[in-house]
Amino acid sequence: MKVAVVGATGYAGAELLSILYRHKETEVAYITSESHTGENISDIYLHLRGLYDMTLSGMKDIEEIGDECDAIFIALPHGHAMNVGRALQDKKARIIDLGADYRFNDVSVYEKWYKVSHTHKEAKRVYGLAEIYRDKIKNAKIIGNAGCYTTASILALAPLVKNHLVETNTIIIDAKSGVSGAGRSAKQANLFGELCGSFKAYGVANHRHTPEIEQALSDLSGENILLNFTPHLVPMGRGILATAYANLKSNTAPEDVDKAFYDMYNDEYFIRLLGRGAYPATKNVRGSNFCDIAWHIDERTGRVIVLSVIDNLVKGAAGQAVQNFNIAFGVDEKEGLDYVPVYP
Amino acid sequence: MKVAVVGATGYAGAELLSILYRHKETEVAYITSESHTGENISDIYLHLRGLYDMTLSGMKDIEEIGDECDAIFIALPHGHAMNVGRALQDKKARIIDLGADYRFNDVSVYEKWYKVSHTHKEAKRVYGLAEIYRDKIKNAKIIGNAGCYTTASILALAPLVKNHLVETNTIIIDAKSGVSGAGRSAKQANLFGELCGSFKAYGVANHRHTPEIEQALSDLSGENILLNFTPHLVPMGRGILATAYANLKSNTAPEDVDKAFYDMYNDEYFIRLLGRGAYPATKNVRGSNFCDIAWHIDERTGRVIVLSVIDNLVKGAAGQAVQNFNIAFGVDEKEGLDYVPVYP
Amino acid sequence: MKVAVVGATGYAGAELLSILYRHKETEVAYITSESHTGENISDIYLHLRGLYDMTLSGMKDIEEIGDECDAIFIALPHGHAMNVGRALQDKKARIIDLGADYRFNDVSVYEKWYKVSHTHKEAKRVYGLAEIYRDKIKNAKIIGNAGCYTTASILALAPLVKNHLVETNTIIIDAKSGVSGAGRSAKQANLFGELCGSFKAYGVANHRHTPEIEQALSDLSGENILLNFTPHLVPMGRGILATAYANLKSNTAPEDVDKAFYDMYNDEYFIRLLGRGAYPATKNVRGSNFCDIAWHIDERTGRVIVLSVIDNLVKGAAGQAVQNFNIAFGVDEKEGLDYVPVYP
Amino acid sequence: MKVAVVGATGYAGAELLSILYRHKETEVAYITSESHTGENISDIYLHLRGLYDMTLSGMKDIEEIGDECDAIFIALPHGHAMNVGRALQDKKARIIDLGADYRFNDVSVYEKWYKVSHTHKEAKRVYGLAEIYRDKIKNAKIIGNAGCYTTASILALAPLVKNHLVETNTIIIDAKSGVSGAGRSAKQANLFGELCGSFKAYGVANHRHTPEIEQALSDLSGENILLNFTPHLVPMGRGILATAYANLKSNTAPEDVDKAFYDMYNDEYFIRLLGRGAYPATKNVRGSNFCDIAWHIDERTGRVIVLSVIDNLVKGAAGQAVQNFNIAFGVDEKEGLDYVPVYP
Repeated sequence: MKVAVVGATGYAGAELLSILYRHKETEVAYITSESHTGENISDIYLHLRGLYDMTLSGMKDIEEIGDECDAIFIALPHGHAMNVGRALQDKKARIIDLGADYRFNDVSVYEKWYKVSHTHKEAKRVYGLAEIYRDKIKNAKIIGNAGCYTTASILALAPLVKNHLVETNTIIIDAKSGVSGAGRSAKQANLFGELCGSFKAYGVANHRHTPEIEQALSDLSGENILLNFTPHLVPMGRGILATAYANLKSNTAPEDVDKAFYDMYNDEYFIRLLGRGAYPATKNVRGSNFCDIAWHIDERTGRVIVLSVIDNLVKGAAGQAVQNFNIAFGVDEKEGLDYVPVYP
Repeated sequence: MKVAVVGATGYAGAELLSILYRHKETEVAYITSESHTGENISDIYLHLRGLYDMTLSGMKDIEEIGDECDAIFIALPHGHAMNVGRALQDKKARIIDLGADYRFNDVSVYEKWYKVSHTHKEAKRVYGLAEIYRDKIKNAKIIGNAGCYTTASILALAPLVKNHLVETNTIIIDAKSGVSGAGRSAKQANLFGELCGSFKAYGVANHRHTPEIEQALSDLSGENILLNFTPHLVPMGRGILATAYANLKSNTAPEDVDKAFYDMYNDEYFIRLLGRGAYPATKNVRGSNFCDIAWHIDERTGRVIVLSVIDNLVKGAAGQAVQNFNIAFGVDEKEGLDYVPVYP
Repeated sequence: MKVAVVGATGYAGAELLSILYRHKETEVAYITSESHTGENISDIYLHLRGLYDMTLSGMKDIEEIGDECDAIFIALPHGHAMNVGRALQDKKARIIDLGADYRFNDVSVYEKWYKVSHTHKEAKRVYGLAEIYRDKIKNAKIIGNAGCYTTASILALAPLVKNHLVETNTIIIDAKSGVSGAGRSAKQANLFGELCGSFKAYGVANHRHTPEIEQALSDLSGENILLNFTPHLVPMGRGILATAYANLKSNTAPEDVDKAFYDMYNDEYFIRLLGRGAYPATKNVRGSNFCDIAWHIDERTGRVIVLSVIDNLVKGAAGQAVQNFNIAFGVDEKEGLDYVPVYP
Repeated sequence: MKVAVVGATGYAGAELLSILYRHKETEVAYITSESHTGENISDIYLHLRGLYDMTLSGMKDIEEIGDECDAIFIALPHGHAMNVGRALQDKKARIIDLGADYRFNDVSVYEKWYKVSHTHKEAKRVYGLAEIYRDKIKNAKIIGNAGCYTTASILALAPLVKNHLVETNTIIIDAKSGVSGAGRSAKQANLFGELCGSFKAYGVANHRHTPEIEQALSDLSGENILLNFTPHLVPMGRGILATAYANLKSNTAPEDVDKAFYDMYNDEYFIRLLGRGAYPATKNVRGSNFCDIAWHIDERTGRVIVLSVIDNLVKGAAGQAVQNFNIAFGVDEKEGLDYVPVYP
């Protein structure tokens, strides 16, 4: 199958190229970049030299791309994918958008949090988090790939809210991400000199991944969940750890919690349950599509604390996109994604 | 005044030497180490060469040290300081213990969480967190210097619990520390190769700083507080950030929160209030005794989120110890501690 | 083919498991560890969970391993592999040793620099640096896999010395390595707290990779070369950069230098020539078997400066071992090794 | 004395403010920035909050500054200080320029390497490396503060060239710097995501510190020295290590080398000689004005290898500037600079 990567010069785009290189059922036919049209991708990313000596197309070729490709991965900032989606609505190419444009069932939530008008409201779209919405992904035309923080957060809490084991109004997610999540644009705040040896929070009470997490957890629980989500920046390149807190319902036993996790994830290849009392580390999943999860119960306070880790660029972006592609096209879900995390 | 540093070869001991070098009212008369007795401290810490070419004494000299010194800083693992304290109870030297042995009003709490018997239960002791207990520190014989995580956590929440602005049974503290907090002992888990590029939690629901935070917050609020405290390890050398969550009482206005912080800390030199909506970063206090604090109010969920940062080895250990010393001996509280954080 | 990894719990051993997981022609039949015999490798390396849930054997099973396996990768500290090699000399298994025991043509050089007696002097062995010694590797029984620093250094200088373009008595190699090269043993000097934010040299004028580099360059040039090699420790996990200096012979033109590199390496898949005036970075080869090389000519001083980078655990250890295996067994040289470096 | 910091928003400017805060004989009367005129420095550098709540002036006030101040520290990019110097040539203020404009005796060397015309050629200037040129600094009107790499390099080699112990045409300096040396401007190449976990060289054979090192070493030796200087970027915030190589003259004994170092530096407070065979680390001097030096002799190759470390922002910039100020104004040379490196 022919695929395109629209917006190939960001970190998520480059990661897509890495994964697709190993994917036996796809051929990368087009890569695009508005700011680097006409340049060779391996001049922009030296690590790709000898592997991808391809020229970047511009968006003006998008209809041609839509005609020729079976699938288009979009790795653009939010607000751009919806225009691509609109332009391609009658083409054969199916769309996997790594941004936020197609993630929300209720477009008004998107418009409120992202502060832009949606130009493709009527599009049928599916939320691209495979372990939760696999069946819907199978035949989707447009997949709104789940975000990085949201993937770690939703996977951590899904078994608990689905099984009504926690008081949903007590959910707090304290999340920490490596710096690649901030992208490759030149910003003083993201210089090595500024971030090395430092740790800080950002986006408290207003980060845009909040409503996305709320949407999925509300969907799973049948309740209308509001929660706190706090992101932090860790001085490392890749990786997200989410620490999720919730009060257990008074009749929830520790074994109920265990059972909920094992029942939901036992057959999921990309979710590795470390068990109750364990400690996942981001490096154990680096460069891979795995999500490692452990949980703890504090009998003193009646809370459950769930720890989950992913690689933000893989399971949090490009890997998940390929997993969704595989599901959508009936390919083995592990194709291109079956390898060992990079440690140390 | 003559002072001694007992346990000078750990990171906190070395930091004490750095601070005392700048302190105009003290002379470091003795430094000790059981594992390196007879060696020169500048062979163990090359950065001290030319500044501290002193020989390390052993604990067998402790009574002589107690006779000669005005103050003894103890930077030993927990369980050891209480024996020193007992041995010196009739000596003139006052004791500032950087470990946990003298932090608890209720010795049984110590014994339960630290799993050792206390051998100096009857000792009069004061909890060494200057901004909260300054008056008691003034004439103390034995000061149990507050711990690193606890300092960041208590200072973040003290104005809120003291003024009864939050539901105390909803308090959650998610804390993150640089690796120097793990000490200088050779452990595989703390190798550079293991920790670089990685992030993880540890001690969930059972970290020993939990009861220490609960003690201080209960004391301030008059309520018996139980809370969740979760530490994490950040791939950086120094610094702690605590993210503290609590539900606001229904009648608490945002301005009440602001007022509580400014009323309590406005005259505190070492606390820098960044204000509502700001973001402290650990590097802004690195190498200094400052604690930077900011807070956020989430009107959607009714929670307050407080962010506080310290240098774990300074305000979280050696700097606080010297601050306590200054208070105890009537020296200017800033003496030895008045300098600029190291940035970048 | 069945293979074994003897000494699977070091970083090089774990990297071998990662690569062999992707290798379509091999099955890992045995993994061994003396210190962890009977344990599961995925309890020692959490990143392997779900991928290698294998029990570690002990060395007492080595003869059985030698009978059953086609190839044995040895990732033990020097001084141990020669005993394994001796024990297996009549078995069918071929040996690829990642340590130093089989690297030297002249055993007395090994004995002098490593300060141990060699117990398997008579063994026929081949030096395992594929780009230089591919033909000899093809039918070798015992391959002494080239070291990490040596690989980066030899590949940087081989075209120059082979073509007699430089004064060989002016060669200086200033090399820098990530910390994984120091292994996974618990040592205070390798703690995160000690190495983060720091840079230092070690092993000046006496590092054991020196004679290995001299052996290969002498072999290529026909001269008896002595040189300076200086290793340094970089606060990062993986990667080596070698900066090699030599005086050009007076009749050497810049184009002669260019030609030497292109002639020697143009058909080598794993060597990527960035060209004259370029700058390789270790991250561009991280997690891959590539060696990126660039060179500079200083007309003011008449020197050539060559820059080469590798991942010390891949092209400098496990990747090279598998490349040698592929050559020795007639498998496509890229098998298991054809993937994209991990960036960022 | 009143002083000004012109260009206070770069890393070197901020470091000057840190040091001057501790300096008992100075008052910072003005700080300037073209891009941030009118802003408060503590909004630009949060670590300065509470310590420097000063407003940044613009360059249009430079004559007033020159009238009022005793000394002006200039921390601007090269090409700007010479205009300030020209404007202030009849003012009382003495100038300490942290850039390159006043470093060269031969202005044509500056113009050739920096590719700008010098607008203040006739200025009397002194090269500001205290350990070598202390006497000239004493009464200087304009001091061209030595660069960061150059300080580490010159101090490493000065005893050897001054005493004619090495073949000066064999000198090679392989230097490595933390990222703060690259400044605080937003550049993609200096993002945390790009540099973390990576190492690379830059400026091979053409870095502008080369002629500055050659000038000082030529001056000391009486010979016209050309050498190779290669800078590299280390993933850490602060610190430079220079590894310097030279062939010993045939009649130079190891003890001659030792003697040269001890004779030249034994009374220098800021130079700490670790001795023959030792290993300085950048972290041992972090945040301090020290330069730690060790040397090694390789009898196999007849070379001496010198290792020197500094903090690039202190001894390599702001600390050295204050040291020069102290000498120029007859203040104790250690004033403001006498404190312990920040470790770990």
